[in-house]
Amino acid sequence: MNDRFFASDNSAPVHPEVMEALRAANEGHAISYGDDRWTREATKSLRRLLGRKASVHFVYNGTGANVLGMQAGIAGYHAIVCTDVSHINTDECGAPERATGAKLLPVPTQDGRMQPDQILGHLHAIGVAHHSQPRVVSLTQSTELGTVYETDLVKEIAKVCHKNDLLLHLDGARISNAAVALGKDLDEITSRLGVDILSFGGTKNGLMFGEAVVFFRPELETAFSYIRKQGMQLASKMRYIAAQFQALYGTDLWRGLAAHANEMASTLAAELVQLPDVEIVYPVQANAVFARLPRSVIAEAQGEVFFYVWDEDASVVRLMCSYDTTASDVERLVAAIRRSLKVQ
Amino acid sequence: MNDRFFASDNSAPVHPEVMEALRAANEGHAISYGDDRWTREATKSLRRLLGRKASVHFVYNGTGANVLGMQAGIAGYHAIVCTDVSHINTDECGAPERATGAKLLPVPTQDGRMQPDQILGHLHAIGVAHHSQPRVVSLTQSTELGTVYETDLVKEIAKVCHKNDLLLHLDGARISNAAVALGKDLDEITSRLGVDILSFGGTKNGLMFGEAVVFFRPELETAFSYIRKQGMQLASKMRYIAAQFQALYGTDLWRGLAAHANEMASTLAAELVQLPDVEIVYPVQANAVFARLPRSVIAEAQGEVFFYVWDEDASVVRLMCSYDTTASDVERLVAAIRRSLKVQ
Amino acid sequence: MNDRFFASDNSAPVHPEVMEALRAANEGHAISYGDDRWTREATKSLRRLLGRKASVHFVYNGTGANVLGMQAGIAGYHAIVCTDVSHINTDECGAPERATGAKLLPVPTQDGRMQPDQILGHLHAIGVAHHSQPRVVSLTQSTELGTVYETDLVKEIAKVCHKNDLLLHLDGARISNAAVALGKDLDEITSRLGVDILSFGGTKNGLMFGEAVVFFRPELETAFSYIRKQGMQLASKMRYIAAQFQALYGTDLWRGLAAHANEMASTLAAELVQLPDVEIVYPVQANAVFARLPRSVIAEAQGEVFFYVWDEDASVVRLMCSYDTTASDVERLVAAIRRSLKVQ
Amino acid sequence: MNDRFFASDNSAPVHPEVMEALRAANEGHAISYGDDRWTREATKSLRRLLGRKASVHFVYNGTGANVLGMQAGIAGYHAIVCTDVSHINTDECGAPERATGAKLLPVPTQDGRMQPDQILGHLHAIGVAHHSQPRVVSLTQSTELGTVYETDLVKEIAKVCHKNDLLLHLDGARISNAAVALGKDLDEITSRLGVDILSFGGTKNGLMFGEAVVFFRPELETAFSYIRKQGMQLASKMRYIAAQFQALYGTDLWRGLAAHANEMASTLAAELVQLPDVEIVYPVQANAVFARLPRSVIAEAQGEVFFYVWDEDASVVRLMCSYDTTASDVERLVAAIRRSLKVQ
Repeated sequence: MNDRFFASDNSAPVHPEVMEALRAANEGHAISYGDDRWTREATKSLRRLLGRKASVHFVYNGTGANVLGMQAGIAGYHAIVCTDVSHINTDECGAPERATGAKLLPVPTQDGRMQPDQILGHLHAIGVAHHSQPRVVSLTQSTELGTVYETDLVKEIAKVCHKNDLLLHLDGARISNAAVALGKDLDEITSRLGVDILSFGGTKNGLMFGEAVVFFRPELETAFSYIRKQGMQLASKMRYIAAQFQALYGTDLWRGLAAHANEMASTLAAELVQLPDVEIVYPVQANAVFARLPRSVIAEAQGEVFFYVWDEDASVVRLMCSYDTTASDVERLVAAIRRSLKVQ
Repeated sequence: MNDRFFASDNSAPVHPEVMEALRAANEGHAISYGDDRWTREATKSLRRLLGRKASVHFVYNGTGANVLGMQAGIAGYHAIVCTDVSHINTDECGAPERATGAKLLPVPTQDGRMQPDQILGHLHAIGVAHHSQPRVVSLTQSTELGTVYETDLVKEIAKVCHKNDLLLHLDGARISNAAVALGKDLDEITSRLGVDILSFGGTKNGLMFGEAVVFFRPELETAFSYIRKQGMQLASKMRYIAAQFQALYGTDLWRGLAAHANEMASTLAAELVQLPDVEIVYPVQANAVFARLPRSVIAEAQGEVFFYVWDEDASVVRLMCSYDTTASDVERLVAAIRRSLKVQ
Repeated sequence: MNDRFFASDNSAPVHPEVMEALRAANEGHAISYGDDRWTREATKSLRRLLGRKASVHFVYNGTGANVLGMQAGIAGYHAIVCTDVSHINTDECGAPERATGAKLLPVPTQDGRMQPDQILGHLHAIGVAHHSQPRVVSLTQSTELGTVYETDLVKEIAKVCHKNDLLLHLDGARISNAAVALGKDLDEITSRLGVDILSFGGTKNGLMFGEAVVFFRPELETAFSYIRKQGMQLASKMRYIAAQFQALYGTDLWRGLAAHANEMASTLAAELVQLPDVEIVYPVQANAVFARLPRSVIAEAQGEVFFYVWDEDASVVRLMCSYDTTASDVERLVAAIRRSLKVQ
Repeated sequence: MNDRFFASDNSAPVHPEVMEALRAANEGHAISYGDDRWTREATKSLRRLLGRKASVHFVYNGTGANVLGMQAGIAGYHAIVCTDVSHINTDECGAPERATGAKLLPVPTQDGRMQPDQILGHLHAIGVAHHSQPRVVSLTQSTELGTVYETDLVKEIAKVCHKNDLLLHLDGARISNAAVALGKDLDEITSRLGVDILSFGGTKNGLMFGEAVVFFRPELETAFSYIRKQGMQLASKMRYIAAQFQALYGTDLWRGLAAHANEMASTLAAELVQLPDVEIVYPVQANAVFARLPRSVIAEAQGEVFFYVWDEDASVVRLMCSYDTTASDVERLVAAIRRSLKVQ
């Protein structure tokens, strides 16, 4: 099996410039827990990208960012409206429920995107003590299915949220891929659309570890230092998270990396769609390709270039591209699938 | 203010060999969440040091290691006997209580070390539904006050624990310093003494981030993969934690680093004890020196070489040495204190 | 508005024999928290009905019974498969999630009854750390929609559960109505079918307050005294719960009361089905009638005899009969609906 | 063994007038969950006693009242300052920690009463993310040791609380005994002194079950209906809690019952103090007597009239009087002790 694969965008190594930034930060002593110049600098850079209202707090990982970010706005009797395929619903082993006590209210989706009217159905519960009280709507941008919310859709959802005293959370594990896909700046797809809480992802775009919780409402920030510490996500040597973010988001590097990953996905999809018996099942808008392959083909192709099956029953696989996916990686995967398909 | 200080052993940078290991691990793709060769290798190294019964699980930080490690053995109605100065009791913002639901039962200490008979007083509660049920005894080695448990004392505490169906947890944020202080191997101060759960620290001995939860009883491991994931401590790019551990604990490097930190503390204490109006308040057995200084001296000396006040009322400061503390760092601190004391 | 209604079976008063039992228990002192002869006697009676393996623990209410009963078998990383209309999913304000940390996995139902193959879909998650681990299947008997699981269906579901190391929980808030409906004894519809945890309801069958958690596996009982106390459901003057249960379940009274409630529902449905524009939407098998009424009729009829709208959009109402519903109550309701329908 | 004892004030039966009120409430249907006339009436009565700012919410028991009442004002990262002998610290099996995630900070007491300066020591933690943030001070009135806080002391503690943005919680499981002891009305020892949250006890003063959470700040009430429901303490047939409270607190009955219990304790203490080798260890100010008895005497006397040993090591027993303790009960106990002491 080849040692480069399409399993996940967190299979990729750390980008060389990030690694260099870590090396550069490795000088002298620094006060721990974030009272250091690297953290101040990276915070400033992120606020430059996300807007002056943004308050930025580094944490270890995406689950931490999602859970603790939402926790800042909710109590145990609240509910979180999310899609049924959302990471918080399916891939965090119940961390949101356990950490917050809140209930998840998953709504079905065709392509990973929630529709505004799906929120409305849950508003009947408001004010009735027997029901968990909807308080957060959580979207993922780009979605777990490789699609991207148009800005108008996010804006409309934000409107529904704020009209009903709900907070809008954005799981931005792949926010950079979304920004690039939409041709927008990061603030244009978050704060300016009414997002209240953002999980700002870095690990899937070339970092070693580290994500940021970003609040766009000052009241959410008030107690976050305690929530983060009690939530076991306060890094002692925080400079090493901050320095990574600075390497990517203190420059335009993030944009190039995400653009490349998206482009590779697009190339891959364009190749696959020409193959017989292969179907692309969701619009390829970011760095993921979901394809239906004949069952027999999957295992054989996996043996050559590793990737994950997404839906066993539907025979759909997920092919993730990352900032370091090369054209020849794509070629190799397509060739493997062609071979399994017995296509000349 | 000098940019090197005695504030904490996590103020130090990452050891160069650890940094080099990170660079070396930064090649090609790796399956995420720990199914990679670096994780396998580091796990093997730790098991070599800790004994064949050891099951090793990497997490992000010390609070995570303490809380999730103990969580593997307890339910919400349990209680954890610990010292009043323990990190879990005073420095984790209530993370143990919130994550596990269990109650902490802090016992007073003279010098950071628990005595076996302090456990006995809490055993009356066992079997009575109104009281939280003691289930874990948690020691810190080396202690938060810079002292070290003699192996016989740990063994005796372990005996009390196991006789009463309690688990023995060791917060080993500075386990390397303790091993060196005792002139023992790591297994000789953990598994062989009856420790059941170990928080194995690396960050305070030269790593960038990362700790390990180690279980010495197979039943504790069973569900830990879920506990770690739900506890938001499962690293996606785990190879970068593992590679660091391998750099330190795959060789004898850890021992040298810890020995150096201890030695610097010892040197510092030897110097300070000769000064008028300075008192060393706890035995200096690992890498921390707790000293009582005249109140007026503290702020002045802090202005030159930063360190933390430990007990405002008692005018006691904490001076932490780390693997990279130099003899001239010590000299500079002593000189600063001498100057403030107006000693020639 | 009449002061007798069809809102809920917990709108009814306490049965006179239960009230008399309370009066009779009100003599002399009793050791609190259950170490009294009333508790021993009622426990014995319930075990006589439910089988020798049954361990019986009184709690305050149904939510307490459901949540704490399941809590005895699960950890935070587990999941509970239930129907989307189940009380634990929709009417406990997220108590199961908050108390246990576990995730609820609701499956859709046509008539309140889960089908065995709906469990299978969730078993893929088992063994994968990213997903909450299915551990309990929770059924409601009789269901929230007034239907009753045939014993074969429960047996089949139990088989699926036990084959996959899942526990079967039965929310028996209306277990007596189900037993009567099926013409079975209580053990024949619980322990003998493979139920592991039973929430045994009394309040909806004529008690003032009090339910029982019943375990059919000894290992579930081990820590329950602590779970109940920490769960705030340990009654100090427990004799007053026990005496009530004894009044109902120490004799055959329970059967008569449940039978009467069921019969009234059946009578009511038979009347309603003859009316134009009225549709009975679920099989009437226990003490609830769900009927679709013309929208205009609902408010008018409610004004005469109170009941709840179940589904605003579908124009469906819920009409609950209780042990004290009389034939003339039914007549009065039917008459009110007829009047609103302008039926002669 | 006699069937009347001094084990606890919840060993007593239900007062006949309370039983009669239950019988009287047992007429017709009532909307469940508190939307009934009994609940409205009892709420009004309690507000008459406690002041217009009081918002009253019935729950099942004292642990529920304590935990949920405090939960309304705190988040997981908060801490609760309480005495080491407080019920919340020692007798609720960790319910406060588990339900709220908060940390308990017990302070030692001589006689059950906290002193204002004991709070101050914990205020250093405020603002530091590593430490649980003090947010509630919890007193018990009358205390677990049978003493009573003078109003000035409560007022002083309230002042310290409010100056430091802390809430003052009063565990009033025996609030009636305290009021009578102080010769005050209930508002004079709660709202007028600055109490913010009151657990208003009834069960220990003659009720069957039921307590009330009372808030004196409107913002604490806002979400309480959800907290109570999710906390499993919302009674479906609430009229039966309310009717009991109305029987006791809608009239002056509560005062007579508490006064009698206090008087019996006082009589008992007066008798015991005259015996050789018997020492009264805390001031007898409410309905409890704590006495040191020769070890050999305890078991012998317990065999005749049951009571609990409070402190095995110190040979101290707790003798609780209740509203129904009679002069001849006291005589019988004193006689038993005399006999065991071999006093003529």
